[in-house]
Amino acid sequence: MKKVRVAIFGASGYAGEELLRILLRHPAAEITAITSRKNAGEPVENVFPRFTGSGLKFTAPDVESIAAGCDAAILALPHGLATEFALPLLAHGIRVFDISADFRLKSAAKYKEYYKADHPAPELLAKAVYGLPERYREQLRSADLVACAGCYPTSSILPTAPLLAAGLVSPRGIVVASCSGVTGAGRKVDLPYIFPECNESLRAYGVIGHRHLPEIEQEMAFAAGVPELAINFIPHLAPMNRGINSTIVLDAMPGCTLEKLGEAYEAAYGHEQFVRVLPPRRTSDTKYVFMTNTCEIGYNLDAHTGKVILTSAIDNLTKGASGQAVQCLNIRFGLDEAAGLL
Amino acid sequence: MKKVRVAIFGASGYAGEELLRILLRHPAAEITAITSRKNAGEPVENVFPRFTGSGLKFTAPDVESIAAGCDAAILALPHGLATEFALPLLAHGIRVFDISADFRLKSAAKYKEYYKADHPAPELLAKAVYGLPERYREQLRSADLVACAGCYPTSSILPTAPLLAAGLVSPRGIVVASCSGVTGAGRKVDLPYIFPECNESLRAYGVIGHRHLPEIEQEMAFAAGVPELAINFIPHLAPMNRGINSTIVLDAMPGCTLEKLGEAYEAAYGHEQFVRVLPPRRTSDTKYVFMTNTCEIGYNLDAHTGKVILTSAIDNLTKGASGQAVQCLNIRFGLDEAAGLL
Amino acid sequence: MKKVRVAIFGASGYAGEELLRILLRHPAAEITAITSRKNAGEPVENVFPRFTGSGLKFTAPDVESIAAGCDAAILALPHGLATEFALPLLAHGIRVFDISADFRLKSAAKYKEYYKADHPAPELLAKAVYGLPERYREQLRSADLVACAGCYPTSSILPTAPLLAAGLVSPRGIVVASCSGVTGAGRKVDLPYIFPECNESLRAYGVIGHRHLPEIEQEMAFAAGVPELAINFIPHLAPMNRGINSTIVLDAMPGCTLEKLGEAYEAAYGHEQFVRVLPPRRTSDTKYVFMTNTCEIGYNLDAHTGKVILTSAIDNLTKGASGQAVQCLNIRFGLDEAAGLL
Amino acid sequence: MKKVRVAIFGASGYAGEELLRILLRHPAAEITAITSRKNAGEPVENVFPRFTGSGLKFTAPDVESIAAGCDAAILALPHGLATEFALPLLAHGIRVFDISADFRLKSAAKYKEYYKADHPAPELLAKAVYGLPERYREQLRSADLVACAGCYPTSSILPTAPLLAAGLVSPRGIVVASCSGVTGAGRKVDLPYIFPECNESLRAYGVIGHRHLPEIEQEMAFAAGVPELAINFIPHLAPMNRGINSTIVLDAMPGCTLEKLGEAYEAAYGHEQFVRVLPPRRTSDTKYVFMTNTCEIGYNLDAHTGKVILTSAIDNLTKGASGQAVQCLNIRFGLDEAAGLL
Repeated sequence: MKKVRVAIFGASGYAGEELLRILLRHPAAEITAITSRKNAGEPVENVFPRFTGSGLKFTAPDVESIAAGCDAAILALPHGLATEFALPLLAHGIRVFDISADFRLKSAAKYKEYYKADHPAPELLAKAVYGLPERYREQLRSADLVACAGCYPTSSILPTAPLLAAGLVSPRGIVVASCSGVTGAGRKVDLPYIFPECNESLRAYGVIGHRHLPEIEQEMAFAAGVPELAINFIPHLAPMNRGINSTIVLDAMPGCTLEKLGEAYEAAYGHEQFVRVLPPRRTSDTKYVFMTNTCEIGYNLDAHTGKVILTSAIDNLTKGASGQAVQCLNIRFGLDEAAGLL
Repeated sequence: MKKVRVAIFGASGYAGEELLRILLRHPAAEITAITSRKNAGEPVENVFPRFTGSGLKFTAPDVESIAAGCDAAILALPHGLATEFALPLLAHGIRVFDISADFRLKSAAKYKEYYKADHPAPELLAKAVYGLPERYREQLRSADLVACAGCYPTSSILPTAPLLAAGLVSPRGIVVASCSGVTGAGRKVDLPYIFPECNESLRAYGVIGHRHLPEIEQEMAFAAGVPELAINFIPHLAPMNRGINSTIVLDAMPGCTLEKLGEAYEAAYGHEQFVRVLPPRRTSDTKYVFMTNTCEIGYNLDAHTGKVILTSAIDNLTKGASGQAVQCLNIRFGLDEAAGLL
Repeated sequence: MKKVRVAIFGASGYAGEELLRILLRHPAAEITAITSRKNAGEPVENVFPRFTGSGLKFTAPDVESIAAGCDAAILALPHGLATEFALPLLAHGIRVFDISADFRLKSAAKYKEYYKADHPAPELLAKAVYGLPERYREQLRSADLVACAGCYPTSSILPTAPLLAAGLVSPRGIVVASCSGVTGAGRKVDLPYIFPECNESLRAYGVIGHRHLPEIEQEMAFAAGVPELAINFIPHLAPMNRGINSTIVLDAMPGCTLEKLGEAYEAAYGHEQFVRVLPPRRTSDTKYVFMTNTCEIGYNLDAHTGKVILTSAIDNLTKGASGQAVQCLNIRFGLDEAAGLL
Repeated sequence: MKKVRVAIFGASGYAGEELLRILLRHPAAEITAITSRKNAGEPVENVFPRFTGSGLKFTAPDVESIAAGCDAAILALPHGLATEFALPLLAHGIRVFDISADFRLKSAAKYKEYYKADHPAPELLAKAVYGLPERYREQLRSADLVACAGCYPTSSILPTAPLLAAGLVSPRGIVVASCSGVTGAGRKVDLPYIFPECNESLRAYGVIGHRHLPEIEQEMAFAAGVPELAINFIPHLAPMNRGINSTIVLDAMPGCTLEKLGEAYEAAYGHEQFVRVLPPRRTSDTKYVFMTNTCEIGYNLDAHTGKVILTSAIDNLTKGASGQAVQCLNIRFGLDEAAGLL
């Protein structure tokens, strides 16, 4: 069988490292290029010693030559820059899987509001398929451009979408409080991220207007079948490497019961390999999804306040980024959806 | 000046260790007894090497003999057991500062609902003063029995009470999401608390009916001037030793502005030594209160949803337990309120 | 191809969890039984949620019925107990891979000295093959009983053996200082291992007479070709989940140079998949072997003191336990040595 | 009583933060200036929120104006820069306590060898008193310039000096393996120190020629009464904020016994407030010295190899830096040696 040839753009960060880890043992994909402006010319082990022996070498991100030797490109680049590469790659007929936020929002206006810049290619927004397989699997089968879902959005949308779609919870007044490990900030060298500033520290940040907010609202509105909704999304930084735990509080609609919640999840995720819905009343734990592509979901109903309480856990680098990109790629190329991910 | 003589009951846990740390450098208090059934007869350094040289020795919790040599007793005992010691100590005229939950609720019915047992001394509930100096300082000056505020409650009540009292936020629909370090579980030897189970783990627990819930609701209702209210309180365990960060989402009332929020805090806490209200829009961080008796508060107003977003950070063992007990003791005995706490 | 059928005895600890993780994606092995006295009858996900969907269930360790359905047994049991299971399993013709210490020492007298009990089956000591493939690959191909190398020994023997064998370093006066993550203590529920006792703690333990000492000395002596040697082995507990870093100081023999050290390593490990020798003067890092079966080795020569300084890093649960057991099993059954381990 | 007026140069790093923490509750010292080029003009709480309310403000390091208002200066500056400030401060009659390495070595040649530059003021090397009170208390009483002992050196010299002086251990072939928390690297914003690079990482560094090596050798030689000695000092980075644990292996001299080791320690440290010698055979733990000025020492004798095994633990920011500087200052100004340090 011919393997899918994959180029990774921006391979020297944590999402890039996770892509390498996954793709190096993927039975039906091979890595044909890894790019890094800073490390061009160096063997991969200079940056990631664990990949010694893979024979991979960073190159400059030269689209022409790379496109000639690949079927798919995964972009682990900063937003804005991703579009600059997506455009010529698409022109060369390469399938593009973008881990950045560039193509996740359907509205160019929202993009401008949250990213403080005009979208560089608004015509692509309608064409891009949102890379969350449990919601958009059919569209992904033929997508040219996949906007892989963000880490916080994945952890927020998967637990809520089936309940919103079933009318079991209200689309109004949703509160999402999430805690992320420090790799969520990328491999960023900045004072707030050095070890002594993070260890024994737990802190909220971006409590108003975080860039993942419109993405979460967009997908929740789609699920609920409403034109718009507004939520509170409050991310926190926690002293761990990997993992996001999201706790979500929603108003139960009349007639909502624990059983109905369970049924909605069973209908939505009963056949999903990468969603694990816990028995009622239990709570998710980042430990149980560490270095896996699974989203773990717990649900509960508080009779005292009439609220549904959801918890979800993902590994931000796997299901929240690189694992999800590979899952989308597997779907797009007709491979086993779990290839490389178990 | 004669020092206040203090006995510590249940001194071999983390709250006990923190009491020792604080009281050993307290200029106006001296420790006259430390009790531990398990370690009776042993020098304190067998359990806490850092206190080598203090000359302290654990004894059995013999109330008669201990009461003869102390003015105050701090109880760092499990709930239920605390009452067994509080009763005879009070009978001997000793001032009692209880770190357990035994006397925090005014309603014996609520106690029974949440602690699954009849309250052992319901007649004391009205008499006990809630040990949160920033709210009950005057009553504390003459209290015989102080029910020191719990860790999660302290982190929830201090940021919300002034806003509820000023009518700037609604008492309905409040959501509190808190993350605690592992010492919050006490020095408990149980599988979920061993290092490999906690490290890289972030998880909610007790999302419905946590025992701190009625305590938080009681004090929020008092502040709001309403007979009752119901909130969602969702605690999480985070991989750190100390610290609680609480994120609180409330409905802004009409006319609420950032300035008015700031003014309400200034009025309430402008002269408080142990509350630090951050400039608007900033967020609290457990790192900045580590091993201090300070509660740090951040506030924000989300025009998008009409919600007030509060964050607060305390050290669960200091302001959330032992530091607060000493602060209450200082007030009760007419000492400098900050003695031993800076 | 018929898969090798593997039973795991004592599957509810961390080594058991790691065996499950590896074997569930092993292309040529299948798990036919997992035992746990405590959890017998429960689905594996009750203990390890990450394995939900595997269909595995813990059973009581009934050798008769389990032996009927397996080709190999991996014992992740406490020492002493391992022998009780190894004997009947061997009698049934099952290949036994023991992760405990029961069969690692060739001398029953040493066993008694360090384990304070007569060896329960001394006649097997000569028969057992030491499960360190880079040293005993040929013998492993036909072994009935494999005594998988311990975690500290693996990290100590791999970096030193080629140098001792080449006469580049002295077998006298070797000092090994190792730091291990907390899973090294097993899934043990005991006060020293709860999170707040380990976090911000680094401490030596067992500095004299640790049970891994005679195992390290035995293998170093074999490598050096001397009847006996005595070393100092000093283990430490570090606040992390996984990983052992060993720093080893040895006397350079006359004529020893960095080049010769590199040549000795190249000869010994140039073709090894699971040993990574770093360029001279660099040092190993547990981070780079996290959740891999690799041993990373760094070497240096201190002209100032005439000492060779080695550092090595392994993941104590993978190369130090379960990964190594699977590597041995792969060799024994003629599979790709790296199957399941990449 | 008139308080000692102290200026802190370079107050925006971790040693500066620790100095602030200590001096703000020092009963006999007051802070009259804190300098930071980068933060000049800002209130201290911009950098360290915990000191809100102290009224302190960073200023530029203007020696003239600062010297006019202080009795002592503590330099928490990079090496090299420290001398630039020490010279004019001494000229103004200010007592200087230098936390950098500038004045620790008695030999300008050694300084050049390890710091790759000519010493900027070699004439001061003989005049500076080494700031390790347990070794040089008498000289410190009248010192104008104190070269506070480094963190690794403190943890290495205190446990070894009494034994070397008593001839119980050999000055030849000493091996020191130390593990340090990440604050040991200062508040440095660099890739190796961000949280995800340190967490789950344990690694040796600077295994040959670390800058603390000649300092340790110098003081060990003084203690042993030999002109020179050479040791192996191997530092490691461990995933924690604070703390150094050193494990030291030395050759026992004929006649050395556990009792004699205990007697040597008793003679040296029996009256010391900040050295805690554990009962024989126990080991030190960084947890027990966290945020204290204590050095904890454990000792053992290995009959098997004839080695003495020492372990020691300090808090690198307290006894390893700022606490020690204040201890020296207390001695120099005739204050209670423990003032501010309990």
